[in-house]
Amino acid sequence: MSGWLVIAGLGPGDEALVTPEVTNAVAEATDIVGYIPYVARIPARPGLVLHPSDNRVELDRARHALQMAAEGRRVVVVSSGDPGVFAMASAVFEALEDAPLWQELDIRVLPGITAMLAAAARAGAPLGHDFCAINLSDNLKPWAVIETRLRLAAQADFAMAFYNPRSASRPEGFTRVLEILREECAPERMITFARAVSTPEERLQTVTLAEARPEMADMRTMVIVGNSATRRVGRWVYTPRRA
Amino acid sequence: MSGWLVIAGLGPGDEALVTPEVTNAVAEATDIVGYIPYVARIPARPGLVLHPSDNRVELDRARHALQMAAEGRRVVVVSSGDPGVFAMASAVFEALEDAPLWQELDIRVLPGITAMLAAAARAGAPLGHDFCAINLSDNLKPWAVIETRLRLAAQADFAMAFYNPRSASRPEGFTRVLEILREECAPERMITFARAVSTPEERLQTVTLAEARPEMADMRTMVIVGNSATRRVGRWVYTPRRA
Repeated sequence: MSGWLVIAGLGPGDEALVTPEVTNAVAEATDIVGYIPYVARIPARPGLVLHPSDNRVELDRARHALQMAAEGRRVVVVSSGDPGVFAMASAVFEALEDAPLWQELDIRVLPGITAMLAAAARAGAPLGHDFCAINLSDNLKPWAVIETRLRLAAQADFAMAFYNPRSASRPEGFTRVLEILREECAPERMITFARAVSTPEERLQTVTLAEARPEMADMRTMVIVGNSATRRVGRWVYTPRRA
Repeated sequence: MSGWLVIAGLGPGDEALVTPEVTNAVAEATDIVGYIPYVARIPARPGLVLHPSDNRVELDRARHALQMAAEGRRVVVVSSGDPGVFAMASAVFEALEDAPLWQELDIRVLPGITAMLAAAARAGAPLGHDFCAINLSDNLKPWAVIETRLRLAAQADFAMAFYNPRSASRPEGFTRVLEILREECAPERMITFARAVSTPEERLQTVTLAEARPEMADMRTMVIVGNSATRRVGRWVYTPRRA
């Protein structure tokens, strides 16, 4: 049997948010590759080899997965959320650039419920109109790019979803993000902090920009900033369709 | 038994992309409410009442669903894709604004695979770095807002996903969108036209901005514009993580 590579999204945590397409791919796999906590979500079974690896080795992990698929294995690279949103799909295609032979492999990307959509659903509909998604980690891009993008996004009046808002090693970045938002947006702007949505550690908090504090976010938090029309109704927050 | 309202995303079309959470809600429902083609995706069964309605009556539909939940029915409002992305969730919360009693109801939003993520997965990973989602329909917002948002998004170097790019009644809007992109971006910019992804009518085409023509899109097409670093590798298109 010839090998294949699937890059699959496991959704935000709850197994009821994993698509049947992904469940089926995992059931047919011989090898699971990914960051330790995501591989830990896959139940062990005879004939399935788990290959957990640490954070920040995405390219090595991608090459390993491609190599195994080239050897005839059926490999699933697992990401949390959606694999195409700040996750493993781009790393796999990056690894393919230098490897024309691997480009002939059977490779599929299977979408998943990305964190911002799970968080938005829990809060109401804060991404109900035009919005953007920004990775606030400056591991792979200069801070100046983040700042420019934030200001333009605010000026465009996008609702915004922030991934990786605040790392333990560099918490000052998110402090600066709130400062920039306060320069560009009114103090009443709605911000939702959604931590570990769909897991037992889930915690949801919606405040105004004036009330927002950096400590409300950590690396497991999705931050959603409304647009200028985003408002509360009952216990929810939503963005009207006409904005 | 007391009533409830679930606003659920059915994903882009393939049943293998419907989450178990949504499947379970539909199985428990007494009533399904939604736009005709989405309700048509729900199999009939004894005890389940289907309430299909036409396009552009979202608020009436939302009120009807809330009314039934208030009467003790178990109601699922179905959207294609994700209900929080240019779909029914915002309309339901809008309907709640004038109805404080309905705000006490058991209401949940269940996320789904939105069209841009299904399309991106099929194409590779064109949304692999910071990106935005814009509804190009000008039913509910002035054209000037769309134009300003587009220019700022291009200047921020977001990858962009366009929903509802080109209606049969006003096809000239998308012609203008391509003109604006040509003013703001280089002619080599990658654009993917992804029609009816995950259905039998799926068709995928990636071209440069110079090659793009308005007729490549219709209302069933998701248009994904890469950022300045988006490129081809093999038969895929992807956006690198460092951009």
